[in-house]
Amino acid sequence: MKTVINLPEIRAARAELTGPIGFVPTMGYLHAGHLALVRRARDECASVVVSIFVNPTQFGPQEDLASYPRDLPHDLSQLREAGVDLVWTPTPELMYPPGFQTWVSVEKVAQGLEGAARPGHFRGVATVVAKLFNAVQPHKAYFGQKDAQQAAVIQRLTKDLDLPIQIVVCPTLREPDGLAMSSRNSYLTPAERQAATVLFRALSAARIAFGQGERRAETLRQVVRTVIGAEPLANLQYVACSNAETLEELELVHDKALLSLAVHLGKTRLIDNILLE
Amino acid sequence: MKTVINLPEIRAARAELTGPIGFVPTMGYLHAGHLALVRRARDECASVVVSIFVNPTQFGPQEDLASYPRDLPHDLSQLREAGVDLVWTPTPELMYPPGFQTWVSVEKVAQGLEGAARPGHFRGVATVVAKLFNAVQPHKAYFGQKDAQQAAVIQRLTKDLDLPIQIVVCPTLREPDGLAMSSRNSYLTPAERQAATVLFRALSAARIAFGQGERRAETLRQVVRTVIGAEPLANLQYVACSNAETLEELELVHDKALLSLAVHLGKTRLIDNILLE
Repeated sequence: MKTVINLPEIRAARAELTGPIGFVPTMGYLHAGHLALVRRARDECASVVVSIFVNPTQFGPQEDLASYPRDLPHDLSQLREAGVDLVWTPTPELMYPPGFQTWVSVEKVAQGLEGAARPGHFRGVATVVAKLFNAVQPHKAYFGQKDAQQAAVIQRLTKDLDLPIQIVVCPTLREPDGLAMSSRNSYLTPAERQAATVLFRALSAARIAFGQGERRAETLRQVVRTVIGAEPLANLQYVACSNAETLEELELVHDKALLSLAVHLGKTRLIDNILLE
Repeated sequence: MKTVINLPEIRAARAELTGPIGFVPTMGYLHAGHLALVRRARDECASVVVSIFVNPTQFGPQEDLASYPRDLPHDLSQLREAGVDLVWTPTPELMYPPGFQTWVSVEKVAQGLEGAARPGHFRGVATVVAKLFNAVQPHKAYFGQKDAQQAAVIQRLTKDLDLPIQIVVCPTLREPDGLAMSSRNSYLTPAERQAATVLFRALSAARIAFGQGERRAETLRQVVRTVIGAEPLANLQYVACSNAETLEELELVHDKALLSLAVHLGKTRLIDNILLE
């Protein structure tokens, strides 16, 4: 496994790999969810490239950029174990040198939910993903369903900008008690960690209602609100029942919907979602 | 010479070309300036691709999109003559299908001059150039110095988004009387055509002042204003004396400056520029 830092290095190392090339962009502090993306890439592609970059432009000024968890040695040993060919660990100074001033913005699909709760977040995501894609030039890129809106934004920008890359969205990996795997779970106190199961319990309750025939989006959202409201440590920021591709809020669920939520547990903000279909 | 229209066609045709690939993006109605770009690409690259696309998103609502001159048969015969390998003529519907919502924006360098006079213009230019680059994936792309700010915007976005493409900016071609070649010259009445020589005469007068040692940017701009003011058919929209890379307005010209202007002649708007160095 080769590790590179700057742009000429990643280009040169990329040029030596056999195609097709699978790419897993990450912010590091890897968990089993990331490793499932790597395994899928390993299965489908001749070569696998992983980037580790905590992208400052997708964090708001009040967010957790400085405290975002990092453990590069452990990340690298997990990636080596997983059979990755090439790891790229650029620095913020290399990605955003003085004079940097070009942004990729996705409109409608990036405006609600996380986009509304975190202004500028998806402009940062879209810009860094475009840069990572242009440097790595993969055939396929792998993202987790846990960040459902991010996946929708990246699918949209890939199509709109005519990037010759196939976006593969992989199922959310969960802890045995249902909590979606996330690097931010490491922030939780033991009590918050226990309370955090409420996200998936709330989504699951709505899924049961959907399974029993409930199609009114507002009623499904209300099921989520009720379950979250019963957990004293949890504060619901939003719950949405939306079209899974456009992220437009629904009144009625016809065939398929994305049910998603953001919850504060103390200082930690967690998101989760399920597809109703 | 092969001609293609849709994205799968351009990708397939591109894949069959021998590299390095030179790319000349145009809006058609080709003149000697375009053909000089093609010739340069032909000299430097194994294969030459030209696109012809009158990009709607770079025209303002009051601008000349509908009347922009078009002559595809003549364009194609000129390109065939010039030894071009592949011509791509996409349609607006193919480039901007329903649901399109991703934009590439360059900030500071796109804000003054043409960016201030034509709101949204450079967002349209940056977005379409990113799309064209992603589809054609050239090694080198050729642009004319006549659109100096456009060249600076494209150089900036190519660098900022880590596109592996070398941008080559070629000198402005001029008519024997000094008028910069432009597809929009076809709009001019005979009287306006004669008056249009005032753009280059004004720039040349400032160049003489610069050659005589004048370094105050405002004095150089004033020379341009005076010459344009003496031509009754010409209305100066702006004159700028700016840093050639950042497009920031200068007070004093140290080593190098871009002197540029936009002028209305009747209903026609023309731009021109020279480098002072």
